[in-house]
Amino acid sequence: MQQTANAPKIGSKSIGVADRDTPLLRNYWYVAAFSDEITREPMRRTILEEDIVFYRKEDGTPVAAQNRCPHRSFPLHTGTVKGDRLVCGYHGMEFNADGSCAHVPALNAAPRAIRLDTYPLEEDGPLLWIWMGDPAKPDYSRLVRQEWCTSPEWAYVKGQMYMKANYLGLHENLMDLTHFPFLHGKWNIARPEHAAAPAKIEEEGDVIRQSETHDDVDMPPAIVEAAGMKGPFNREAHHLVQMPGMHQGMQVTVDSSDPPKRDVQHIIHIMTPETRTSTHYLWAMARNNAIDDAELSAQIQVVGDGAFTEDKVALEDIEELVARDRRPGFREKIIKTDEGGIRVLRLFARLAEREQAAEPEAREAVAAE
Amino acid sequence: MQQTANAPKIGSKSIGVADRDTPLLRNYWYVAAFSDEITREPMRRTILEEDIVFYRKEDGTPVAAQNRCPHRSFPLHTGTVKGDRLVCGYHGMEFNADGSCAHVPALNAAPRAIRLDTYPLEEDGPLLWIWMGDPAKPDYSRLVRQEWCTSPEWAYVKGQMYMKANYLGLHENLMDLTHFPFLHGKWNIARPEHAAAPAKIEEEGDVIRQSETHDDVDMPPAIVEAAGMKGPFNREAHHLVQMPGMHQGMQVTVDSSDPPKRDVQHIIHIMTPETRTSTHYLWAMARNNAIDDAELSAQIQVVGDGAFTEDKVALEDIEELVARDRRPGFREKIIKTDEGGIRVLRLFARLAEREQAAEPEAREAVAAE
Amino acid sequence: MQQTANAPKIGSKSIGVADRDTPLLRNYWYVAAFSDEITREPMRRTILEEDIVFYRKEDGTPVAAQNRCPHRSFPLHTGTVKGDRLVCGYHGMEFNADGSCAHVPALNAAPRAIRLDTYPLEEDGPLLWIWMGDPAKPDYSRLVRQEWCTSPEWAYVKGQMYMKANYLGLHENLMDLTHFPFLHGKWNIARPEHAAAPAKIEEEGDVIRQSETHDDVDMPPAIVEAAGMKGPFNREAHHLVQMPGMHQGMQVTVDSSDPPKRDVQHIIHIMTPETRTSTHYLWAMARNNAIDDAELSAQIQVVGDGAFTEDKVALEDIEELVARDRRPGFREKIIKTDEGGIRVLRLFARLAEREQAAEPEAREAVAAE
Repeated sequence: MQQTANAPKIGSKSIGVADRDTPLLRNYWYVAAFSDEITREPMRRTILEEDIVFYRKEDGTPVAAQNRCPHRSFPLHTGTVKGDRLVCGYHGMEFNADGSCAHVPALNAAPRAIRLDTYPLEEDGPLLWIWMGDPAKPDYSRLVRQEWCTSPEWAYVKGQMYMKANYLGLHENLMDLTHFPFLHGKWNIARPEHAAAPAKIEEEGDVIRQSETHDDVDMPPAIVEAAGMKGPFNREAHHLVQMPGMHQGMQVTVDSSDPPKRDVQHIIHIMTPETRTSTHYLWAMARNNAIDDAELSAQIQVVGDGAFTEDKVALEDIEELVARDRRPGFREKIIKTDEGGIRVLRLFARLAEREQAAEPEAREAVAAE
Repeated sequence: MQQTANAPKIGSKSIGVADRDTPLLRNYWYVAAFSDEITREPMRRTILEEDIVFYRKEDGTPVAAQNRCPHRSFPLHTGTVKGDRLVCGYHGMEFNADGSCAHVPALNAAPRAIRLDTYPLEEDGPLLWIWMGDPAKPDYSRLVRQEWCTSPEWAYVKGQMYMKANYLGLHENLMDLTHFPFLHGKWNIARPEHAAAPAKIEEEGDVIRQSETHDDVDMPPAIVEAAGMKGPFNREAHHLVQMPGMHQGMQVTVDSSDPPKRDVQHIIHIMTPETRTSTHYLWAMARNNAIDDAELSAQIQVVGDGAFTEDKVALEDIEELVARDRRPGFREKIIKTDEGGIRVLRLFARLAEREQAAEPEAREAVAAE
Repeated sequence: MQQTANAPKIGSKSIGVADRDTPLLRNYWYVAAFSDEITREPMRRTILEEDIVFYRKEDGTPVAAQNRCPHRSFPLHTGTVKGDRLVCGYHGMEFNADGSCAHVPALNAAPRAIRLDTYPLEEDGPLLWIWMGDPAKPDYSRLVRQEWCTSPEWAYVKGQMYMKANYLGLHENLMDLTHFPFLHGKWNIARPEHAAAPAKIEEEGDVIRQSETHDDVDMPPAIVEAAGMKGPFNREAHHLVQMPGMHQGMQVTVDSSDPPKRDVQHIIHIMTPETRTSTHYLWAMARNNAIDDAELSAQIQVVGDGAFTEDKVALEDIEELVARDRRPGFREKIIKTDEGGIRVLRLFARLAEREQAAEPEAREAVAAE
């Protein structure tokens, strides 16, 4: 366990930090979609550069399979679901939910050699988790179920966006509250002096935790009013990164009422890489107070959609610039407050190295088959 | 001459089968355009990755030349035709129909060193054939004139589409009637059980023939009515592939009238590669009965436009998926009914090898010049 | 100093001639923008593949800096200008006009290690020049101030376009009046026989001059009328190329009045490469007669916008064709009247070789830093 050094230091991003060229991490659970996106109609989503089709069986169980007919590469999401089977729209091949072939009309048979890769799924309230590693060996110890999203004591709002940017920039963005008063200036959630608030960082194994305190802050007026709270506020922010596809935020806000009201929110950011330069960005904010207050939910939705879109646009602007600007020798600078984000990037670089080191074995297995 | 083995077998596409990486075949005649596309106005079409300009001389003879002024690469199709000459819109250079320079205004001369490559053409009714090999050595033995398109005993309808997909997928599609009840389900031309109809395949030299029989099939009602036939029908389908740019289909349909009516149709599919991932797709359907029946022609046009657009869309969807899905180690599976298509792909792989083997000689010739 | 050989000769473009693959030339002044484009609002423009932000200080001095925050690559043009400082919209980092850091909110400090590259600028009437070489060593001997654009004795009109084409084609276009009667046929500025007018070319050091005479020419009627001149005209055209980003044209026109009227115009073409296949094309036409005649200015504007757009479209058509046409072994032909343009291309090839030869030293300097 390490603490951030207090000495200011300016460095450059260098070797050992994950970036656009780092292989995407496979042996993890990612949120593939919100559960309500998956219906009896097949739905396509590309994750880690693999095209995947999702649908539900008659009993409601979700299915994820390669969205590519093994016969002639036809996209299966344009086909139909018949009972629990997925039917290809080109030659009518039928596949069971476990990926095995159920029927090839042209053969009037169901050959074992024709099958779809399927993906282990876990449904967790509104979240549909997908295991992107070896489908035979999903590691359930790496699955982090979210209590807030199934417990009756919590209410949540959620949203999603398609982001034409690498997912790592979003991780950096989220470990860093110093951009609040600037990129999110219009929401009134921090003033410039809060940018210098020190962060406490803890790293243990492959888990990174960070927290910081913002005293005497404002909040978006519509939320303050809907929540019946009274400014100014003291805010503790907690961050937890334990897998490549999620940033688990928690925010504890204490108001100036007498006695003070205390508000706890989970702020969950989901970044599921589509490619190295595009990301499915989903988010949820959950609270355990005034959970039936529809007006409060509506105001939180407005702020979430608004502020997280600012992050998305910023990260897309960066992605576009990086492709455009051929400035020789440019390397981004690191400042003290980047410590948390940089640790995340270092962690992911280590995880990628570990996966690549294990890869030859996997490749041999494929070759032997 | 070989017959299809009857034993079902599942294999994978592998070496020896033409695919997107196979060099396009040059020493063949392709249909460049329908004749009525070529007028006195210059028209551009890219074929086998060469940009070509087409126009007609005053006497109506079609001309095909490189669409690139040898002087400064200006596209000649934006210029004008003056008499039989093509005039570049940039510096006014004039070229004769044989590609020789007729006039360079800036020199007031017509230097021999400035000339256009031209392409041997053959007009065959509605088809304008172009030789894409060495222009000095067009091989007329490889030109397959189509009797149906010039004989007064035949009537035809035709159509064309631009397809953002490699041309080989269309060849596979056409050797395979097993997709009829699925991709073309709405046209009523086969039921799922017909997918298993066995095909007879013959291969002799560089020519592949295939045929199959569908008994007790329906036909699109509007066509049945316009043709004055009576279902159900027995149908023989014949396929002939003897060059990379055409699939010659023929269909013999016998109805349930007493005595039975017999209908013969040529169904010609033209796939002229633009690039390795885009194709000019032209088609024609010719019949020798009721050739003056405009209503029947109109109904055939509807079915042709509709059904062949389904093929085009399917092949474009596949092309998009192949570019998107980076699934490691994926290789398409082959089933028994793919035999005909696979033979075509093997044939084209052999033809490409043959051309590449002859290439060094051609390159030396260019270098010597 | 060399004269054009009179013997007609047809050659091919070959080694020694700059083309799309030639590295862009850095150690020169380019026109970054028209001065009135630069305001207190930050403006982005990519030049030589570097993304640059422009704004004005409170005293009006223009500033050019890398449009990429050194911290997280955020595009600075989306930020704000505060006093003389540029403020990043992501984390609020502030930069002085000299590129040094003025304030990092998260550090409450201004570290020296965080800074922007800035670009030497020179404002010259409507032209904002930028030095794209080593910012520490702008070579003012290479800056060619334009008298016509600051002298009260001259009036000018100007225009600008974004051109999706390499800048070299525009240089070739401008050394060559032989395209006037064809590409610009509708403006009545030359007849086909003028294409053969011989050019006089002088080359001295890195400077190329060319001139030619067109006797008995017409002019666009609206300009003739507005200028109160009388056709036919004799025209001397002068060309001067002494840097990669500008073609300095001058045109002396003598009319058929008694006594003859003599009109002198500077026709300045500015080609600032964005990338190897895109160019910022700016132009100006300056005259020293009837300088207060708004109607004459308006007519010149119409002709400039119209005719130079014809060049832009032609060069974009060529760029598109070059990417499309994979004709093997194609090489553009050179004719006698291309001599001037080819000399420019040879000059730029030599300049690029010189810069590349000096490059290792520059790279060592970067590495040592």
